[in-house]
Parts: sequence; structure tokens; C-alpha cells
Amino acid sequence: MNRTLGVCYYPEHWPETQWAEDAARMAKLGLTHARIGEFAWSRLEPKRGAYDFDWLKRAIDTLHRAGLKVVLGTPTATPPKWLVDEMPDMLPIGADGMVRKFGSRRHYDFSHEGYLKESKRITLALAKAFGEHPGVCAWQTDNEYDCHNTTLSYSPAARSGFKAWLQRKYQSPDALNRAWGNVFWSMEIGDFDEIELPNLTVTEANPSHVMDFRRFASDMVVRFNKAQADIIRAHSPGRDVIHNFMGRTLAFDHFDVGADLDVSSWDSYPLGFLEDRSDQGDEWKRQFARAGDPDFQAFHHDLYRATSQGRWWVMEQQPGPVNWAPHNPAPRDGMVRLWSWEAFAHGAETVSYFRWRQAPFAQEQMHAGLLRPDSTEAEGFGEAAQVASELAALDAALDALPGKADVAIVMDYPSAWAWEIQPQGREFDYFRLVFDFYRCLRQLGLSVDIIPASAPSLDGYGLVLIPGLFAWSDDLVMAIRDCDGQVLIGPRTGSKTADFAIPASLPPGLPSDILALRVNRIETLRADTPVAVTQDGGFQFWREFLEPGEDAETLLTADDGVPAVVAQGNVTYLGGWPEQALIKSVAGQLAGRAGLVMKNLPDGVRLRRHGHHVFAINYGAETFDLATLGWKGQPLLGDLMLEPSGVAVTSVADAG
Amino acid sequence: MNRTLGVCYYPEHWPETQWAEDAARMAKLGLTHARIGEFAWSRLEPKRGAYDFDWLKRAIDTLHRAGLKVVLGTPTATPPKWLVDEMPDMLPIGADGMVRKFGSRRHYDFSHEGYLKESKRITLALAKAFGEHPGVCAWQTDNEYDCHNTTLSYSPAARSGFKAWLQRKYQSPDALNRAWGNVFWSMEIGDFDEIELPNLTVTEANPSHVMDFRRFASDMVVRFNKAQADIIRAHSPGRDVIHNFMGRTLAFDHFDVGADLDVSSWDSYPLGFLEDRSDQGDEWKRQFARAGDPDFQAFHHDLYRATSQGRWWVMEQQPGPVNWAPHNPAPRDGMVRLWSWEAFAHGAETVSYFRWRQAPFAQEQMHAGLLRPDSTEAEGFGEAAQVASELAALDAALDALPGKADVAIVMDYPSAWAWEIQPQGREFDYFRLVFDFYRCLRQLGLSVDIIPASAPSLDGYGLVLIPGLFAWSDDLVMAIRDCDGQVLIGPRTGSKTADFAIPASLPPGLPSDILALRVNRIETLRADTPVAVTQDGGFQFWREFLEPGEDAETLLTADDGVPAVVAQGNVTYLGGWPEQALIKSVAGQLAGRAGLVMKNLPDGVRLRRHGHHVFAINYGAETFDLATLGWKGQPLLGDLMLEPSGVAVTSVADAG
Amino acid sequence: MNRTLGVCYYPEHWPETQWAEDAARMAKLGLTHARIGEFAWSRLEPKRGAYDFDWLKRAIDTLHRAGLKVVLGTPTATPPKWLVDEMPDMLPIGADGMVRKFGSRRHYDFSHEGYLKESKRITLALAKAFGEHPGVCAWQTDNEYDCHNTTLSYSPAARSGFKAWLQRKYQSPDALNRAWGNVFWSMEIGDFDEIELPNLTVTEANPSHVMDFRRFASDMVVRFNKAQADIIRAHSPGRDVIHNFMGRTLAFDHFDVGADLDVSSWDSYPLGFLEDRSDQGDEWKRQFARAGDPDFQAFHHDLYRATSQGRWWVMEQQPGPVNWAPHNPAPRDGMVRLWSWEAFAHGAETVSYFRWRQAPFAQEQMHAGLLRPDSTEAEGFGEAAQVASELAALDAALDALPGKADVAIVMDYPSAWAWEIQPQGREFDYFRLVFDFYRCLRQLGLSVDIIPASAPSLDGYGLVLIPGLFAWSDDLVMAIRDCDGQVLIGPRTGSKTADFAIPASLPPGLPSDILALRVNRIETLRADTPVAVTQDGGFQFWREFLEPGEDAETLLTADDGVPAVVAQGNVTYLGGWPEQALIKSVAGQLAGRAGLVMKNLPDGVRLRRHGHHVFAINYGAETFDLATLGWKGQPLLGDLMLEPSGVAVTSVADAG
Repeated sequence: MNRTLGVCYYPEHWPETQWAEDAARMAKLGLTHARIGEFAWSRLEPKRGAYDFDWLKRAIDTLHRAGLKVVLGTPTATPPKWLVDEMPDMLPIGADGMVRKFGSRRHYDFSHEGYLKESKRITLALAKAFGEHPGVCAWQTDNEYDCHNTTLSYSPAARSGFKAWLQRKYQSPDALNRAWGNVFWSMEIGDFDEIELPNLTVTEANPSHVMDFRRFASDMVVRFNKAQADIIRAHSPGRDVIHNFMGRTLAFDHFDVGADLDVSSWDSYPLGFLEDRSDQGDEWKRQFARAGDPDFQAFHHDLYRATSQGRWWVMEQQPGPVNWAPHNPAPRDGMVRLWSWEAFAHGAETVSYFRWRQAPFAQEQMHAGLLRPDSTEAEGFGEAAQVASELAALDAALDALPGKADVAIVMDYPSAWAWEIQPQGREFDYFRLVFDFYRCLRQLGLSVDIIPASAPSLDGYGLVLIPGLFAWSDDLVMAIRDCDGQVLIGPRTGSKTADFAIPASLPPGLPSDILALRVNRIETLRADTPVAVTQDGGFQFWREFLEPGEDAETLLTADDGVPAVVAQGNVTYLGGWPEQALIKSVAGQLAGRAGLVMKNLPDGVRLRRHGHHVFAINYGAETFDLATLGWKGQPLLGDLMLEPSGVAVTSVADAG
Repeated sequence: MNRTLGVCYYPEHWPETQWAEDAARMAKLGLTHARIGEFAWSRLEPKRGAYDFDWLKRAIDTLHRAGLKVVLGTPTATPPKWLVDEMPDMLPIGADGMVRKFGSRRHYDFSHEGYLKESKRITLALAKAFGEHPGVCAWQTDNEYDCHNTTLSYSPAARSGFKAWLQRKYQSPDALNRAWGNVFWSMEIGDFDEIELPNLTVTEANPSHVMDFRRFASDMVVRFNKAQADIIRAHSPGRDVIHNFMGRTLAFDHFDVGADLDVSSWDSYPLGFLEDRSDQGDEWKRQFARAGDPDFQAFHHDLYRATSQGRWWVMEQQPGPVNWAPHNPAPRDGMVRLWSWEAFAHGAETVSYFRWRQAPFAQEQMHAGLLRPDSTEAEGFGEAAQVASELAALDAALDALPGKADVAIVMDYPSAWAWEIQPQGREFDYFRLVFDFYRCLRQLGLSVDIIPASAPSLDGYGLVLIPGLFAWSDDLVMAIRDCDGQVLIGPRTGSKTADFAIPASLPPGLPSDILALRVNRIETLRADTPVAVTQDGGFQFWREFLEPGEDAETLLTADDGVPAVVAQGNVTYLGGWPEQALIKSVAGQLAGRAGLVMKNLPDGVRLRRHGHHVFAINYGAETFDLATLGWKGQPLLGDLMLEPSGVAVTSVADAG
Repeated sequence: MNRTLGVCYYPEHWPETQWAEDAARMAKLGLTHARIGEFAWSRLEPKRGAYDFDWLKRAIDTLHRAGLKVVLGTPTATPPKWLVDEMPDMLPIGADGMVRKFGSRRHYDFSHEGYLKESKRITLALAKAFGEHPGVCAWQTDNEYDCHNTTLSYSPAARSGFKAWLQRKYQSPDALNRAWGNVFWSMEIGDFDEIELPNLTVTEANPSHVMDFRRFASDMVVRFNKAQADIIRAHSPGRDVIHNFMGRTLAFDHFDVGADLDVSSWDSYPLGFLEDRSDQGDEWKRQFARAGDPDFQAFHHDLYRATSQGRWWVMEQQPGPVNWAPHNPAPRDGMVRLWSWEAFAHGAETVSYFRWRQAPFAQEQMHAGLLRPDSTEAEGFGEAAQVASELAALDAALDALPGKADVAIVMDYPSAWAWEIQPQGREFDYFRLVFDFYRCLRQLGLSVDIIPASAPSLDGYGLVLIPGLFAWSDDLVMAIRDCDGQVLIGPRTGSKTADFAIPASLPPGLPSDILALRVNRIETLRADTPVAVTQDGGFQFWREFLEPGEDAETLLTADDGVPAVVAQGNVTYLGGWPEQALIKSVAGQLAGRAGLVMKNLPDGVRLRRHGHHVFAINYGAETFDLATLGWKGQPLLGDLMLEPSGVAVTSVADAG
């Protein structure tokens, strides 16, 4: 099988007498993987040095005997109380200056040297004990880095680490002062010891200062993860190292962490994310309350496929109502199945449900599992069984890998930090901008790859989008020059140097042989006062005053006479944050020029090409006739009449 | 007289030369009681041990000579600065970790042993000095426990007290770990010294942890109050011990505090509470801005009638505009009188206006009194005089006690804590839920008793409502089994064990001979997406997926096919938070089955049965013809045409 | 020239090689002044005592040689890091108890004695070095006092200073206790050492306590500024001492600071202030998004003309989009010119643009300058050039001074503090109240002077408005008695004594020969429930129940029968916060009685009389025909058809 199913399991929560039956039911359901152990430190080491790994061995043995492969988590997201009491300064400190206390999880500071050492110690002990266990197929490092906003800490440990990081980067205070422009407001330092963390300042801190702090904090996550990965690789040969990322989490650079992983994974909670992390208004949230945003999961599937060179999982798949969003509705019947298939459509190797049995106690007691607390089957159980059964029938017919998409979007974490530091207008949010473009491509029926800004390859893409990129990398500029496809840039792309200054020749700062263009002025707009461009729509939130050079051509002009879209050869520049219709119009024309086939999809229906097949899914509440898109014949899975929560798979040839 | 009027008076605020005249005017107005002394510590003990009680004696003597009975307050809500400076760690600490400083009132931590000792010392000194004074008829302990959210403190004193409290409850760390499910997220402790307070955690703390902290904090209030009550009883025989509770205040268990009181009282500010503490929307607030919510006062009258076995007062009655709500309009003419009569309709012994004369200085200078700061009569004065005169005429005709109501609602403070800890959906609030049911009963013209969840007697009620009860008590389950009336349960009732876990057999967890029903799943809903049940309305905020057992019958089914209302014998279960119309429909049918007489009342008109009489009051702006309800003859008080702010009393026989 | 233009310049931000060219371009543009130096401490004194003034001398010399006059700033708004590290307790502490850290600007506590000494030391060093430099024409003390809410600090230094301030004011604890009414809630102190700062109290602190703290804090700003002014005057004879105030900043008394200045100036950012500091709703903000509020600048022009006896500047004039408001749109073409002319219309001596060249680095990199970062001309450059050219042509024809206006409004900083401390209703804000009256006068085409409540002269005004004055001063009462014009008082005026108590005879507390009137009761209203008075409108937010005395006449009565407007002779009292139409109706009638000429202006058009001329400006988006107001002939500047962003000047005789 190229595609498998798994589940998250906590043997330490249940009587040992129940383990074997649990394992047998998992296997019978069609699951092949079980993730365990990632919060169990207090059971693995109840007191310093008093390791108790026996129970874990028995648990792994039990699962292994039932035919399940174990993903073993390092328990470093939940250091036990005795450890915190030994070194209380390992606790993170919030931007408000208050210690974030023990009593839940993720109560540690990534930059704390002592805790790093402890995390390596427990990882080493576990890797030595279980690294070559035949039941262990993979490892998960820690759990959900940054969850509960834990990347940033304003502790003495962080200040000390940041000073050293800056000293390495800048070598001299003068170099730092110059790079940051510290002459402004007399912020100059005479010694690295004078560096403060950029919180609790009287008004905003220097953006260059904050930007370096964000880079430092991201590097600390990378360092923390790599330390575990190195240990595991040394002691558990042949096993994959995985971490489980989250949705719309941008506080650290997932490409950097992903580079140290074999497999990226993420925790997909469509309903929680819609309620908690969507920019869409109430009408959209009401419409998709029981389905989730039709593009949010796909976006992250495409993103995390990129962070570890193609290998990726869903480590935690929502199986029913969760407990943490402002409202937690039940998924519409069929959605758990749809979400599972959607992940496979985007190339997932494994989809693992969270969790096996709902815990009746503690913080997540209202979070559904495949089983209810009394071990009866919850609603998601049957849908998982259906996926297992369909997969058995269909897996061999599908390609192993999804292949390259037609369109690529550049996604860049430092850009997210930059615009969080300096939004300039209240609504300016990098994720929202990138996701707006992504959604429009999907509405056009296009499949998308997400690529990084560093060392990207643009080969083979008909269209490449680069919205809101903070600062150019040399390799990206070179890649644009070499690109055969259409390139759509902006708004705000290239508007800063790496030091967070305005480029000397003004944005977007591209060589004039690529794009002869200057942004002379920008403005931010109230949400109720967009600037009209075409009858399709205009610019909202952010608008630029473009001055095209000699070789550039103005394609569209705003109603007030300001150039809106400018092109030079295959490079097109957008001088504002386009409303949805304008994105579709501009990107659609470029995609057409690149020869890409587009469809006009309703809100809830989405397509994804996977190798020689195309998947169609229906997040909407209305049945959709795929024949209207040109589909013909009986799909391999599903029907041409795609019902709500429906999934259909057909060959590229039959997909019109 | 069974019913009397009083006033709150601060002799220390006025020249002693004015006291006698004040007392004479009170008596002439028809008042019989004066509450004094509760904020006067800095005058009673200007320096440690330097008691100065003489002025207080002269004040009591003056009031007594004018025929007034004195309710003497202990001054412990306002410890003086010299005392705070002696032990600054008596100050409470907020959940944000910041000390709550001296400079207003209630600046003490209930769990601080040193301050408890001080509060006993000053209480003892006062009780010895005035306990047998013939002018003293009663005592008030402290003032408005929890006002300004002062039940919870996150101080070292609280942590120390909480550890000891937990040790007594659980005996061993292992027992605590098991009860709380601390294996989850490695939260296990090895020693009670490791216990932290559940604030400032990285994400939410364990709900069992928080729940125990809430119980501990409530117990500290009970302990504090009982210490004073015991001293007063020992030294002031025959006097009532009273405390003045607040509206919509649920942070401590008022039944527990009430058990140590002779009389419960509360401070009734209808306009302030409407503006500041109502869940109703703007239209409702606009409609009743000068009248108050037509059910809020009644609810608390019924509640505090229950907390001390029937004896209760209004200790502070709003007499005009107040100073503390977002907006502070003037009451409509007649409302001060209406509020006074409404209290008597619900069985109040005494209604005491706050305050005699408006203070021209300090925090409450914009709070009206019966007199203006220049001693002229404020608007409320005349209405108080009217009540006094009407009371003189009517008191003897009325029964001493209101008697048992037809309907009972269970009100349970721990349930309020539980759902504050774990709302699961943003709108889930226990008070709001209970109050929704209460309001609908009142709209049906029913009189209501509020009863506790522990040791309740359900005898004699036609209908008993148990919405949102956190966990069953054995005695309540037994009482339901023995109940002759109709019992309406849910939503969310019995959904937890006392340890804050999901019951092993799933909610509602009743024996199957009472109700064979399992709640398989719950979901929370956006306010804009209710689930339809009947044409009358459906479920909002919270909805359950019910699986009725063999002996249970599904009475109503939601539009999506899920059972909504299930019954077994005289026990009915509601699987969601019903909209108002659905409550009225379901509860109305059960009340009808119980043979209760119902009326269909407009928004502002309410009825209350009191012994052999029925009161009608009109919070609305339109005159209402009581004849349309079947009233006949000339009421004892008022007219059949019930004008805005009107009050009418007739015999049960004439009330239709 | 009576009127000149300037610019803010930061030589330390640019290579020295660029200075001469910059200076030459400034001069060529028509600028005559350059403000420099106010944030340069780290360059002037990189280490303690290691002064480096040479570069500054070269910069001043360069500007001087180009014919520019230099305004030299003291750099005390940005103490360097080495100084903060020497005495970290100079950092301010927020009301939340947290230190406000180094890393931006204004990180100092006005009440810190050590920092006061340091600020005097650097001021003295600069004054000695440059005080008699021929190129230096004026000094700016510090920069934007209170910006980022820095007047109030809750530090140990502040507590210590406050104690001493109180001791000087009250002499004895008893006197303080009496003045504050500390007997209320046992807040009495026995020693000045017991005084706490009024933050972090359990509920609101005593308003008298807070009011004295606000007075103390304002005095600390005055002290800080005067210390610099005294040093400068001693060492820089003949140069003006200036400070640059902000918009809608009321935390310290600008009249008190202004008394120590030769020239008041302010920093005028019309678009930023509209977005960030306006009470108007979204429609208004949308309408004027690219123009600014048509009355906001004028109000501050009139205000700061008053704070230093008539001499005032705009020190920083917005030249394009800024960086600090929620949205930062580009000004409509022509608005930079309009704002400049508007300042001159109100009597400004100098309008100085902020800043010469946009900085590409640090916090304000998105703030436009006259030049772009690459030294090309930004959009504001041309408008400044136009103003310079028009000024050259017109200056001589205009009077030197604007002369007395027809109407005066009393503006009083302590009243702003008082109603912030005790709004009583959510919407009650002193600035908003005064500004509502001001706007209506402007809509009637009237020119307005702003006058203080202390030692005001009311001579020569046809109409004097005194809304919301906290407490009377004897001299104001005397001035009212002597006033020949119409006086409009209220609401809430005279409602407190200086100690923040209700006057013994009740508000408004005027002698009965001036106004025989008592306010018996007040109420605050939800914004959705105004009280109707006339068909023109009624009272919102705040309403009083008036009892006119024998000599007073009720002019208007509210729909519910309560007197709304009462008059006695030339004194009229308003018993509520009038809606705009009611202000215009009442104030218009009084202005008519005073023989003032009024016009009915649309939202965006405003007039201002300046000596023998009248200015008309158009903030609106529609052309307006000035002939409809009676204008005739060809204006000296502009046309009778006043286009959007248009300016016109004509003689009083031709203005109809």
C-alpha cells in the first residue's frame, strides 16, 4: 500500500488489560499505524533518573503483535513537574512579562540551554531503548511546536541566547547599529550586553530588532528539533523522523525545521480551524460550519508536502467535534471520510486519526475519538472503516506520488513575521494574502504546489505567484530570470532588504531587465474603501503607486488613473491587494497564456490532480454534477453526481 | 408588621449634630430599620488597638431613641491602611499575577490566615461592645462577598491554603492524580508541595484542578463568614446574622454561606444589573432601561429565599440612578415603589433603601440616595413613603409567608463554576441557561421556588426543572425517583462526575429505571445556526445526540432526525439549549400535565402568588388589563388596569 | 514675511556629504526653517561625558550657510541606553505595573529626579555650545510630551514625588482625608507615607485621589519643561523656546506648559488623527479618509494659539501617508497645501513639514517625507513649493495677526481628567463634548477662540461657551458676571468642587444673581435612547433634571416635561449633552442675539476670519460655490468655485 491509516493512542490512559483488545480493534478497522508516547514523560521518568520504560515496551509489543507500526513520540512537550521545579527558569515568559506556568503543556523555553540538555537526555534514553524495536517504524519529535504561541519567549534565557545570536551575526555593535538604523531615536548600543528583548517598549520597537528576534526564535525551534532528530537517527536506523505541524502557524520557519525531518506531518482540524483561524466572514463560517473551509486543508497539504521534499502525513485527523474552538459543531456525515481522501489526493502517505478513544478526563475530555469514552464506536469510526475499505480497493490503481502541479505559489515564513511586525494597515496579514491567491487558483480548478523563497525551482510551472514577499533572495531572482512560465509578483513583494529597510532603488527592487518598475508610494485602505480597477473588482487594504519603466507595460489602470497591473515579458506585477474577482481575472489570464486548463468551480467543490487521476470533493451542501466540468464515464470512486461530502476519482483523460 | 422598611446610613459621613434629625426623618418616613457601620473600620480603630467605639454607640443610641432598629455591620470589607501595611501579603492577587492594591474596598484575601484572625478580632470587639445593645436587632457580616470579583485570589496564601485543602481531600498525591486524570499531559505531582494555582498556564489548566480551586475558594468565603457568625452568635443573643449578597454572583456557594446565616439578604439594583449583567440584546435593554429586567429581581428574590430556609431581606434597594453601570438612567416614576412591593410579593421581611443621603464625596458620589446631598428629598423618597403608607394599610391582610410555589428550579453553584471552566461553546453560561428557563416559567404566570441540588425536597411541586446540572448528588437522584410531579432535565445535566470526568456510562448518567438514555455526542453551535426542532423553535448554542433506551420515548425530533426531547414516565429530558418558545412549549405541556394554571403574559407583566394572594406588577410601558387574565373585582391594592410601574394585589380567588 | 515654511531634518541619518545639497534644495523650495537634533542624544554623547558636538556644529553651519534658520531640539525624548542602564528606575511604569522598557522613545519618568538632572545637564551642554550660534533661531524642548501615553507613570519615583506633592498641598493627613472624603470605605491615612498610587486597586480608586495624581503628573511635565526652558533662556538670548504638542492629547495641562514657552507648536497629522482619534462613525471616516476631519486641525490651531498668548507654529505637518494609524491612505491631491494654508488662516507663524526625506530604516520607514528615500520628490514636495510661491505673493497683503474671534470656548484640562476619572456614562468624554460644540460653531461659519478656565478674559466676545467645566474658578465666575456677550453653560459645568465633591448647594453652583438653578438629578443614557427636546434633536449620553430658581426662565422643555434649557439674562444653561442640531439651534440663536453673522456650511467647507480677510477651505469632495455665501469679486487666492482641496482668500468686505 502506498497509502495507510493510523491512529493516536495513549496506553498510559487506560488499564493495561485493555491494550490488546484496543490493538486488535485498530487492526480490524484497517489501521496500520499507531502514534504513542508523546505526552508520557511523567510515566517514563516519575523522578529524575528513575526511568520506567517497561510499560511502554509492553505497549509497543502489544501493538506490534497486532500488526501495527508504532510512531513513537518524544515526550518533551510536557516536561514533568519535578523537572520544572529543578529549573524554574526553563518556563517561558510572555510578551507581557509574566511567567507562563506549569499546569498544561508546552511550558518550556526553546532557548533554555538546560532544558535543551534535558530534552536530549530523555530522547537519547528513549532512542537507545526503542530505536531498534521492530515495532517502531518512525519517531515524532515533541508535539506541535508553537502550539499556544510558544515559539516566542521573553525570558532571561531568551535574552542571553539572542545576544549571542546577534554577536555571531553582526560581529560588532556598530554593524548591528547600522543594519538596524539605530541612529533613529538614539537606539544605538555600545555593547551586545545592552541588547534588550523587543517587548514592553513604550511604543513599537525597531522592526529590524523585532525581525532578528523572530529569526532567532525560529532558529531556536530548529535547533531544538534537530538535536532530537540527530539523536534518533544515530540510534534508530531506518526509521523516519517526523514532526506534527499545525494549521496557520507561522511563528517559526517550517522549511528550516522540515529540512531536518524525513516526513513532515500536520494536525488537521477543519472545523476548529474554520471557527478559530479563518478571515472569512460569518456567512462563510455558517455555510461551512460542518465541513470546514474548502481550501484550508488543501493549502496545508500542499505546504507540508513542500517542507520535507514531498513526504508528508496527516498525523492528527479530526474525527468528530473538538473542544478548543469558540464553537465545536459535529462534522456533517461523510466529512471525516472526505478529509481523509482529500489528504491522499494531495499525496499524503498516512492519515492518522486523533484519537482512538475519547478521554473522559482532563483538558481534552470533550474532544471526540474514534471510540466514545465507553469504547462504543463514535461517528468517525464508521467513516474511517469506509476509507480503509475503499483504500484497499483503490490504492494500487493510483500513482505513488501526485507529481508536479501546474501552478506554484511562493510561501515564505520571514515575510509573515515582517508584515506582522509592520502591517502598515490593520488588515495586512501575510497568510491571508497568500491564501487569497491560493483560493482563487483552486476556484479555477488548478492544482498548486507551494515552494519556498530560498533555492526554489520554478521549472515546469506554467504560472508562479509571488505575493507579499518581504525580501528577495538572489536565487529567487535568478530563478525568475530563467523561468519559462508566467510569473505574477506583488503586492509588496521585494519591498524590504533583508535588514528590514526600504531598498535604495525603491521596491520592488528587481533588475530592470526583469522588471523596470518603481513603487513610489503606498497607502493602506479602510476595508470599506477599496480602489476600483476593473468591473471585476479592485484593490483592498493595500495599494501602490507604480511608476513603470521604459520596458514595462501598464496592463490595467485603477479608476483614479494610477497604474494597477504592469508587465514586462513573462513577469507581471500587481500594485495592490486584489479582491477575489480581480485575482481570478489576472491570474486566470496568465494561466490561460501558459496553456493551463481551468474550470469554474462553485464554492464547495474542489479538484486535485494526482498523477494520472483527478480527485473531486464536495465541501458544499448541494449535489454537483461533475459532467458539467466535462467529466465522463463512471469514476473509479464515487459518482458524477457529487453529493455533499462526496468524493470522486477519475482518470485525467475522463476529467475533461 | 410582617413587612418592614429600612435604610442604609453612614453616621461617620455626617456631622454628629445632624444625626438626630436624620433619625427623626427616617422614622417619620415610616422606616423601622437602619443598617450602619459596615465600612467604618478606620474610625472604629484608627490605629492598632486604639478602639474608638464611642461615636458608634452615640449613633446607635440616637437611632434607637428615634425608634429605629439597627443592623450593625462588621467593617471587614474595608481593612484600614495601617493594617494592610502591617501585612501586605493579605492583599489578593489577580489571575494576571498582579497584586490588587489598597485604595478602594475588598482588598483582602479570604484564604489569608492573618487577616482571618484580624477579622475575628474586630468582630469580637464589636460584638462584645454592642451585642446586647437594645437598639441592635441584627448584624451584617462584611459586605457583598465577591463584589469586584474578590472570591478568587492567586496569592501565596491561597496556594498554601489550597495545598492543605487538597491534602485533606485526597490524602495522597496518587489519589489526586487519579481523580484529576493528571496522567494526561504528564501533569502528575509527587507531593502536595508541587501544587500550583491554575492561573497563567500556557494553555487551559486541567478542569479538575480548576474545579477544586473554585471549591476551595468558595470554602474560604464560607469559613470567613462562619468565623464572624459564630462570634456574633456567642455575644449577641437573639439577633439575626445576615449577609448582603449580590445579583448574578456565582463565584462562591451561597447555599453554603447561607447555612450559617439567619437571614439571607441581597442588594437589588435593577437598572444597573440590566445594563451591566444581562445577556439580552440592545432592544431589550432599551425597552426596560428605566425599569430593569422584569425577571432578574424576582429570580434573586426566589434564590435568596432559598439560601437561608425562607428568611430573606433586600438589604440595599436602588432608590434612583446609580454610578457603576455603563449607563445609569433614572428609574421611571413608580419603579422604586414597584421594586419594593415586588420584594414583599416574594416574601421579603424587610426592604432597605441604599442609601439615606447621597454622599457628595468619594467613589459613590453619583449614587442617588433617598435624600440629595443637600438633604432635600430625592425622587425615591416619596415612593418609599408611599410604600410605607400602603404597607401600613395592607400588611395585616397578607399572609406572613408566601408558601410553596408550583414549580421548582434547581440552582447549583458548582455547575456555574464547571461551565465557566469548560463552556465548550462560547455562549454556554450556567446562569443564562437557568435564567432562560426561569423567565419562561414567569411568562407562563407560574410562581417559582429555587432549590439546591443537595438535599432538595421535591415534594409538592407540580414541575421540577434541572437544567445544566454539573453532577448528580445521590439525594437528588433519590428525590427524582420519589417525585410525584413532572421532572424536566437537561441539557448537559449529569454530564460529569464530581471529579469533572465524563461518567463511565455516558451522560446523563441516571439509573435506567429513572431514565434510560445515553448522550452519545454533543456539539456547540454558532449563535446564528440553531437547529430547528418544532415550528416554535429549536436548540441554540448546545445540542446533544440522544440515544433513548428501551423504556424511553422520543417526544420531539430535530429537523435533522436527531431525538430532541425524550421522556420516561414523569421524567423528561431536553437534548439541547432550547430557544424561548421551545422552553415555553415543553415546560408548558408538562405544567399542564401537572394541573398547573398558566397565563400568557406580555414581556413586562408578571404575577407572583403569595399565600392567599396574587401580586401583579408591570415593568412595561403600556397599561395592561388584568381582566384579560381573569382577574375580577377591585384589587386590595391597585387597579385591574395595571399602569406602567403599577402594582396590584388580589386574592387567589379573584385572580382567575 | 510674517509667515514662513520649514522642515524637520535629521543630518545624523544621512552621509555628511549630502548635507549641503539637502540644504540648498530646502532653500530653493522656499523653506526658511529646519528643525534638527531632537532625537540625537546617542550621537551627541555616545558615552557618559564624551560629548561629540562637532558634527552638529557642522550641520548647523551648513544649514545656516544655505540661509536656513535652525530650530534645535533637546534630545531628552530619547535617552541613550548607557544612561538607562546607569539608572534603570528612570523607566516609567504602566498602570498595569509593568516597566516600560528601552527600545523606542519617551522611556523616562517625568517625576524621576535623576533623569531630570540628566535632562538639565544635556540641555545645558547644548545651550552653552549652540545658544549664541547665529544659525540657531529657536529651541524645541524634548519632543511631543505625553506621546504614547507617557505623562502617567506608576513608579516608585512617582509615588515618592506624589507624596511630597500632597504634603505640600495638604500639610496634614487629616486635611487630605477631609478633602478626599477618605472616611468613605475607611480609606483614611495616618501619614503621608501611607499614600499609594491609584492604580491596580480592587475597584475604582477615590476620584479625589486620582484627580490629585493627575494634577501632580501634569505638574511634573511642567517642571520638566520649565527646567529646560530656564537653561535655554539663560544661555541662548533672543531665541524662542518652543515645544511641539500633539492632537487630542489632554494628559497634562498645555496652558501650564505653554506659559513657559515663547511659542506653542503642534504636530498636525490630519489623516492619522481621523483614523485613530475621531469619535465620528465609519461613514464620516470614509468620507474624509483622504482629507482629514474638517474641524480637527482648526480646533488645535485655535487651542495652541491660546496656550502661549498667540504665538504658535505647526512644527510637524503631514506631507503624505503616515505609518501609525490603523489605515494610512494617501492625502487627496492638494490637501498638503490646504492644511498649510489653513494653519496660516488661524494665525500660524511657521508651518514645518515632517520630514525632509523619508527614512528607509527603523520605526518610521513607512512615513512619507517631502523626498522619497532615494531623494526624488515625493508628492508633498510640489504642494509645499506651491505654498511657498503663493505665500511670497500673498503674505504682505495679509494682517500679521488673526485678531480676536467672535466666539470663545472654554477649554480646561483638569475637566478632561475629571470626566475620564468619572464618566458616569460610557460615552462621556470631555474632548468630544467640547469638540461637538466647536464643530457646530464652525458649521455656522463662526471663527472661534479657545480660552482657559483660569484668568480668562471674556471681553469682546459675542458668545462664550462653557461646556462640561469640572469646577468653577473665582475669576471665571467674575468674568461671567462682567460679560457683555451671551454665555452658554453646561452640561455638567460646575458640578464639582476643586476637591472633586458635589457642591453643597448642588450644581451648577453659580451665585443666584448669575443663574438661579439647581441640578437635582442627572442620568446617563444609552446611545440608542436620546431624550427628545425639539424637533431639531435632543439630549444624548447625559441629561440633567433642572430646577430653575425664581429669576430663571425655562426656554426649552424635554418631551418628558423636564426643563432642558434655562436662561437668566445673558446666561443660558443646557441641561444635557445636545445632539448636533440642538447645539446649532441653541448656539445659533444666542449668536444671532449677539449680532454675529452666520453661514450654513456643508460638511467639508469651512471659513476662518483672519484680520481683514476671510479664508475658505474645502475638505469635501464636491466643488462649492462661495457666491452662495455672498462672496463676490475675484478672491486674492483661489476662486469663488471652491474645488475639492481648494483654498480661497478674500477681504472681509467681499465675504458677504
